[in-house]
Amino acid sequence: MNNNKQNSKKSLTKLLLTNDDGIYAPGLFALYSELKNDFDISIVAPESEMSAVGHAITLYSPLRVKEINRNGDFFGYAVNGTPADCVKIALQELLDQRPDIILSGINLGANVGIDVLYSGTVSAATEGAFLGVKSAAISLATRKNPDFSFAAQFSRQIIKFLKHNGFKTGTALNVNIPAIPKEKLAGIRLVKQGTSRLKERFERRTDPRGNVYYWLVGEIEIEKYTEDTDLIALKRNKITITPITCDLTSFEDIENLKPSLSTLKI
Amino acid sequence: MNNNKQNSKKSLTKLLLTNDDGIYAPGLFALYSELKNDFDISIVAPESEMSAVGHAITLYSPLRVKEINRNGDFFGYAVNGTPADCVKIALQELLDQRPDIILSGINLGANVGIDVLYSGTVSAATEGAFLGVKSAAISLATRKNPDFSFAAQFSRQIIKFLKHNGFKTGTALNVNIPAIPKEKLAGIRLVKQGTSRLKERFERRTDPRGNVYYWLVGEIEIEKYTEDTDLIALKRNKITITPITCDLTSFEDIENLKPSLSTLKI
Repeated sequence: MNNNKQNSKKSLTKLLLTNDDGIYAPGLFALYSELKNDFDISIVAPESEMSAVGHAITLYSPLRVKEINRNGDFFGYAVNGTPADCVKIALQELLDQRPDIILSGINLGANVGIDVLYSGTVSAATEGAFLGVKSAAISLATRKNPDFSFAAQFSRQIIKFLKHNGFKTGTALNVNIPAIPKEKLAGIRLVKQGTSRLKERFERRTDPRGNVYYWLVGEIEIEKYTEDTDLIALKRNKITITPITCDLTSFEDIENLKPSLSTLKI
Repeated sequence: MNNNKQNSKKSLTKLLLTNDDGIYAPGLFALYSELKNDFDISIVAPESEMSAVGHAITLYSPLRVKEINRNGDFFGYAVNGTPADCVKIALQELLDQRPDIILSGINLGANVGIDVLYSGTVSAATEGAFLGVKSAAISLATRKNPDFSFAAQFSRQIIKFLKHNGFKTGTALNVNIPAIPKEKLAGIRLVKQGTSRLKERFERRTDPRGNVYYWLVGEIEIEKYTEDTDLIALKRNKITITPITCDLTSFEDIENLKPSLSTLKI
């Protein structure tokens, strides 16, 4: 970035963009293209696809960082690590200034139900949140022929919402957007994470050298029609927003287990 | 396992042991050695160390499984995947019968505070819990010269506790044991996950070919002396038990954000 550009951007909100589909993913580029004129944007994203890495961080191999230029104006850092690594190294090493807001996405595919636990997109936002930056993950609920244009536009609303609201320490927003025309959208809902998950099995195959290997395959979704959950609202054509915490304590179980604690002996 | 051995074990509680330090880790072997005579044990664990993988699962490369024999009597499956992969493939492919209980550990090092999010040990237990098996992660709070003997003995208490108590769907137990002599232990506490975390930075180095790389390094712990959290209780020589949920929703934030929802426009 040249100095003129930097100076003119001084007053703008500082955004860090990241994702788990990799720095070359169309969803990240859609977000950048929509926002580039109105925000001071930094991009730090995985070098390659990092879906389903959960909240992994890289401890046992070194991280390498490449400077990337795309289409002339897209400057970013590609990291050979996970989305959570990207947020850590962006804030602690690569960026001159702390971002005001972190957006992770736009992910190709919804991040709802139990899958939130496996989501690299969401973990980048959670990492940002507990490093003290207001953060959101944005996902488009389709895996094929994505049209990111509305989701990218809607990210402006999410930025405003992040700016104007307070959150508990470590809470990030998980935003899912139905992949339907804007006029068919049926509103915006604050919802809890559902318990829907894929019905999984392993497919056993034999490689050309006679060795067995397995692929994890997901089949029909096990629906649990609980009201006010992310998946159900999304299926009803609503944009969903779920505040995601980094405190995994089940307080209800603590209460339930208290009477039994004395049965444990050292 | 031969048929005689299987028959004699029919009435025993079926345990699945896993971990994130890998199938050859001493902590797993300590657990196995303590429990082998009284339980019907299966072992499915990562082939190599998988610490800090969070709740990752392997989608883009095939899983391979090796049968392992160690010291004559230790039979297990080594998987080239994460702890969550191990639990999935154990339940859905490798084991003839569903286990009654899953224990993940004994981990070399505590899993407390924000680090719970990064923990492969804990994610194996969580994966087990939402696949419907009562599960616990067990960690010993030291990284050097571990003596796993008491922690292994105490796992018997945890097994009983899991058997005799009910939990919310998807809740697992995260158990941390101080690395001190048994007689110095100051009791057992049900505690919440704390917010303590390492103060992290990246160490920038140059490789022999002139390329820059980074190591994530953790320094002095940022203490937040909240009462009743895992780290604080552990430091006070208490065994800690934290029920861990797979529902990441921050319900408090949902309530707080409700009045602002109408500011969002499609």
